[in-house]
Formats: sequence, structure tokens, C-alpha cells
Amino acid sequence: VVTLVTDYGSAGVYVGALHGVIMRICPTARIIDVTHRVEPGDLIGGSLALTDALPFLPVGVHVVVVDPGVGSQRGALALRCTDGQILIGPDNGVLGAGAALAGGVVEAVEISDSPWILDPVSATFHGRDIFAPVAAALASGKPLVAAGDPLSVSQLIELALPTPKISRGKLTVIVTAVDDFGNLAVMALPRDAEVAGLRSGAAVSVQGAGPKVYARYGRTFSDVGEGRLLLFEDSNGRLALAVNGGSAAETLDTWPGDQVHLGR
Amino acid sequence: VVTLVTDYGSAGVYVGALHGVIMRICPTARIIDVTHRVEPGDLIGGSLALTDALPFLPVGVHVVVVDPGVGSQRGALALRCTDGQILIGPDNGVLGAGAALAGGVVEAVEISDSPWILDPVSATFHGRDIFAPVAAALASGKPLVAAGDPLSVSQLIELALPTPKISRGKLTVIVTAVDDFGNLAVMALPRDAEVAGLRSGAAVSVQGAGPKVYARYGRTFSDVGEGRLLLFEDSNGRLALAVNGGSAAETLDTWPGDQVHLGR
Amino acid sequence: VVTLVTDYGSAGVYVGALHGVIMRICPTARIIDVTHRVEPGDLIGGSLALTDALPFLPVGVHVVVVDPGVGSQRGALALRCTDGQILIGPDNGVLGAGAALAGGVVEAVEISDSPWILDPVSATFHGRDIFAPVAAALASGKPLVAAGDPLSVSQLIELALPTPKISRGKLTVIVTAVDDFGNLAVMALPRDAEVAGLRSGAAVSVQGAGPKVYARYGRTFSDVGEGRLLLFEDSNGRLALAVNGGSAAETLDTWPGDQVHLGR
Repeated sequence: VVTLVTDYGSAGVYVGALHGVIMRICPTARIIDVTHRVEPGDLIGGSLALTDALPFLPVGVHVVVVDPGVGSQRGALALRCTDGQILIGPDNGVLGAGAALAGGVVEAVEISDSPWILDPVSATFHGRDIFAPVAAALASGKPLVAAGDPLSVSQLIELALPTPKISRGKLTVIVTAVDDFGNLAVMALPRDAEVAGLRSGAAVSVQGAGPKVYARYGRTFSDVGEGRLLLFEDSNGRLALAVNGGSAAETLDTWPGDQVHLGR
Repeated sequence: VVTLVTDYGSAGVYVGALHGVIMRICPTARIIDVTHRVEPGDLIGGSLALTDALPFLPVGVHVVVVDPGVGSQRGALALRCTDGQILIGPDNGVLGAGAALAGGVVEAVEISDSPWILDPVSATFHGRDIFAPVAAALASGKPLVAAGDPLSVSQLIELALPTPKISRGKLTVIVTAVDDFGNLAVMALPRDAEVAGLRSGAAVSVQGAGPKVYARYGRTFSDVGEGRLLLFEDSNGRLALAVNGGSAAETLDTWPGDQVHLGR
Repeated sequence: VVTLVTDYGSAGVYVGALHGVIMRICPTARIIDVTHRVEPGDLIGGSLALTDALPFLPVGVHVVVVDPGVGSQRGALALRCTDGQILIGPDNGVLGAGAALAGGVVEAVEISDSPWILDPVSATFHGRDIFAPVAAALASGKPLVAAGDPLSVSQLIELALPTPKISRGKLTVIVTAVDDFGNLAVMALPRDAEVAGLRSGAAVSVQGAGPKVYARYGRTFSDVGEGRLLLFEDSNGRLALAVNGGSAAETLDTWPGDQVHLGR
């Protein structure tokens, strides 16, 4: 199994080329397109896509290509984790949260000059030329130690995920994603809301980039009336905002990267 | 084979998580993404996606997740049909038209508390936590009777599809979908047009939400000039509107849910 | 292996129906969705999608459905190429560049009345009714000679790809595609830039449909500052324009089909 998280979108032949390269090298590979809709260059979004999906993916090789520094001096990684998962991607921190969720890194390899990469390597499409062929070779059973040069785990670039600001009766969070329903994922946990004193079942004021709107802190969409705003724990275990039968993003005129103030 | 119809779109890791769950439970499953672009919560659109695709799909397990009532008291179904197809989805009527096309339901099971669902079950992502694991278990050969509690077919929620209004020389229809060409699918059959007296080959007036435009009732796009409107029987056997080399939706400023009046 | 290039987009059940038809006929087929985002009816775009992906795809059956003349008298082709690749699509020139890249056509068959097509054939969805079933039959090992009527290679419709206009210090090109990063692909090769006297590393003026902007002719995104314009050889070996961390299409207000003047 090879799984893919990228910011390639659906235009161009980027995703098709990844599949082609993988299937040329490992014809029996099963490929899962986890998502190709990470915002361009959004390392936080790529990290969260990996960690949100990983608990539901088979053991295999998981490739994340969110890579604004492609073609520069940044490194390229293959990581073996405690629970057996292998993660592949640029050395820009995007793999860190996934590796932690998988029990931590037990073996790290720098693959920029791997014997398995394509020749020539383009300057801008390392997904096709470096990450996919190394993933396919590992999926076909080649040993990680042969993928490149060993690397100390302490050398890996780290990425800090944003944290909410918590005060008495107030929680300030960053919007990390909007889905195709218009639901807004924010970077906070239900226990952050609890610490801030926002109580399940109660009304919560929500001030994003647009108008201030009152939400109910509920459990699912039908806990509020049609067109009303809901604060809830989403299926990834974080807080999120939704409008029953509508779009929270449009209702709040609030989008990824924006700050939202939640208040009692 | 497991096939998927949902309103999840391509953002987020929803679709990837479905694939992951299915492949963890049934590693040899072949998965077909029929579409993930049903309009959010559109039960009619989900019904039609299933019935449009079903005649062209292998025998297998077909999952439809269009589920505005997720997390509420609505039921969750696995249905075995006369022709051997198995349908899975919420008990909100979205499976009904597909079941009828597959010869009718011969066995119905309530799967909300199936032994095969994930633990815990989230309040908002039953596609991942209930429908996908049950589909995968059935695809791996487990018997339907073991999926949950037997249900009488007469208890299933029914969904009425919209019908056209037919009068002498006039046919009033609802737009059910727009595709990426801008073609508008409407809820009427060629025989409805015949009853209304709209004749193949003739000019037809088309009044949607925007300007009134004359179409020709033809067979294929090139039956009208570049930029001209065509009324035709689409590949699903229903009436549709297209502009040769353009977008009927933009030309008519008419979109899903809008009414269109077709006249002689 | 069956691969798919179409202009179907992601709405409707078009792509799902192709997969279903292929898997009913050839249950062991591996399907690669190269792209379904060719601009509607864009034969140049379809040609380039095929040639960009083909070097990275396994040997197999490659289907291209960009088919504005569907349902008219245009032919339908299955082509065997020197290097073993089989190409399938309408006889409108869209396969030509791919066939040339695959070493040229050694056997051509007209498949409009192939014994393997579905019955009935719709007027507007030959992807499902003609191209997919013929591709699946060939993928399952049936011989090309049995697919239909032999055709002389000299009878195939040809399609001319646009060429850049080169003068001293100036290169005028057509934008062929924009990807989801906002990068603009243009129809010219690095050697065209060389002939025009545009030097790698130097500043280049870029005048599209919008404001004139200066770019650097570099190698990768990080060769220019955040928000700055880059002219580069893309991963398909042609020239392209990108903004580091932004959208070249929006910066230049320039889109597929527009002309761009590159100057020293």
C-alpha cells in the first residue's frame, strides 16, 4: 500500500504521473489518494491531513508532498516509525506530526540521492522523480537502509503546529481548513474549550473575519436548526464550526488562516 | 468491488479515510469512486448518481453517503437486491431508486449497531465509522444476516423523485444537476417531451432562471451550431440541455434546483 | 493497465461509469486516472496531457476522451505504437502527439462498430459506450485486429500543436494550461528561449493579458523571492511561469488560450 497526500490539486497530470511511476516500479501496489487538496505549500494542512488519515490507513508507505522548497537545498526523507509505518516527504517538518502519531521515528534516511530516483530529476516535481519511486521501491519490499544515507533523527526539521490562546471564557483559534460543505476546522481540542469554560450544550459567540454569530456547542449538525451555526468536535477529534444545511465559511466570511474568537 | 457515491467533495481526508478503512478490512477490495460531487445533502442527486451508474457497475457493494441527518436517530441500512447488488447508506430514501432498479430489496438489515462498525463512532462521519467498515466486511464475504438487525422492507424511508409538469405544448421540469461542461440534467424523460408535443428536430423555447433561449431538440452537440442550445436525451436516458462548445448553465443562468419551462 | 485522460471533470458519474465498464469487462484491470481536468473540448490540452504523462506510465492501454464531435460522423480509433503502447480515442488528432512519442503507429483500427462496444451506444457518451469497453477488452488480452476495421495510418486526422513566434530578443507563446498552483504552462521549449536570446539567470519581461511583469529565468520556485515571477523549464520540459508562493495566472491575469510576450 502506498498512500498520497499532496497539494497538487486535480489539474495537470501530477497525480497521474505519481500513480504511473509507482505502478511501473511496483505493479502490485495499491494506491490510496488520501487528498490532493492541501492548500498550496501549507505545511500545517499537510501535517493534519496525514495525522487525520493515518489511524484509518493500512500499514504501508505514506507519501506527503507539500514542498514549497522543491529544488532548493532542503532534504528528502524516508522515515520508519515504531508502529511499522513508513513516511516519505520533504525535510520541512510536514512529516513530524505523523511520525509522532506513529510512535516516533526509529530509522531516518536522506533520499535526495537515492539509487531508486528517476534520472534526470526535474527541479520542480520531486513527487514524481524522487518521492514516488522511493515509495514504490519500499512498497515492493526493498529495505529502507538501501534507500539512501542514514540520518540522525535529531537532525530532522521540526514544525510547530499552532496552539489556541485560552483565557477565562474565551478561546482564540486558527482556522486550518475548510471542506466542501463549508465546515471550518480549527486548531483546538474539546479540552481547550473546557479549560476556557465553554460548555457543551451552551451558546457560544463566534467572531471570525466576518460578522459575529452565535453558535450552539453541540454534537452533530441536526443539533441546531437549519441554517444555524454549530460548534462541535469533528471526526478528527478537534473543534470545528458548521452550519446545518449551509456553509460556516460563508456565514462567518472566515477562511483558512483566519483567526476565530470563541466566547461564552 | 465496493463503489462509493458521496457528497464529500475532494477537500479534507474524507474519501481517503473511506478507502483506508475499506482496505484495512478487505485488502483485496477494488474500489470505484463513482462520484463524490453530489451537492451537499442532496438526496435526489445521490439517488440519481446511484441509478445512473449502477447499470455500468460490477456486482458488488455500493455505498451512498448523502446524509444530512448523520448523528441523529435516522437508521443505517444494508440492502440485498434481487439482482445480487448490495446497497449501503443512511435510511433517508437515498437508496430507494437504486434498489428498485436492482429489482427490489430482498433483505434489509439495520447496521447502526453492527458488530463490524468502528469503535468509537464519531457523530458526524458515519461514512468512515459505519458504512465503509460494513461494506468492506460484506465485500470480504461476510454474510449480510450478520451485519445487524433484520428490518422489514416496508419500514424503509421512501423518497419521492420530482416529476415534470406536462401540459399541451409545455413541459416544466426541475434541474437536478450541472456537470463540468455546464450541461443541465433535468428530471424528465423523452416520452414526457413527446406527451407535451415537443418534437425531435424542432425548435423549443427554454425559459429557466435567466433569459429565454431557443434550443433545437436534437441528438448530439454538433446537431446545433457552436454556441447554440441543444435539448437532448442524455446518456442516462433523461432530458438535458447543452450548449455546443459552451455552458448551458451559464447561457440560461440556471442551476440545480431551478425550474425550466420548455415550450413549443 | 488502462489509463484515462478526459475532459469530464469530477461532476456527474462519467468517470465512475468508465471505471465500472472497464472492471466489468476486465476485472483485474488496474486503472490510472491521469487527469479528467482537460478543458472541455481542448484537443491541444488533451494531447499534452497524454504526452506529458506517457513516459511515466506503464505499458498498457491509454484512453483519451476529448471529443467535441461525439455522436457525429467522426471516427473512433485504437492504435498500436512501436513501443507497445495502445492508444484509444476519437479520430480528431488528439492521439497524434502521443503516438509519435510512442514511436509511431504500427496498426490502426476503426472501432466505431467494434464487436466489443456496449449496446445501445448513446449519442453523447462514447467514453462509456465505445472507448472504455474496447480498452478493457484489449487490456484483458484480446487482439487489436479483432477490435474493428483496419485503417491506413495515412488516413488519421492530424492536429497541429501551436508553435512559438521567435524573433530577436522576443518570444511569443500561447498559454496551454494553468494548474492548481496558478502556474502557467506555455507552448515553447527552453531552446526556443535560447534562440530568442533569453538567457538563463537573466530578467525577462512578461506581457500577457494583464499587467507587464518582470520575471527571472531560473530553475525552481525558490530562485525568486516570495511573490516574484519565475520563468522556468517545467517538469514536462517546456517553458512555464510561476509565482513563488502565489499564482502566476492571477499575477499576470492570463489564462489558457491567451498569448504571452516574453522579452529580454
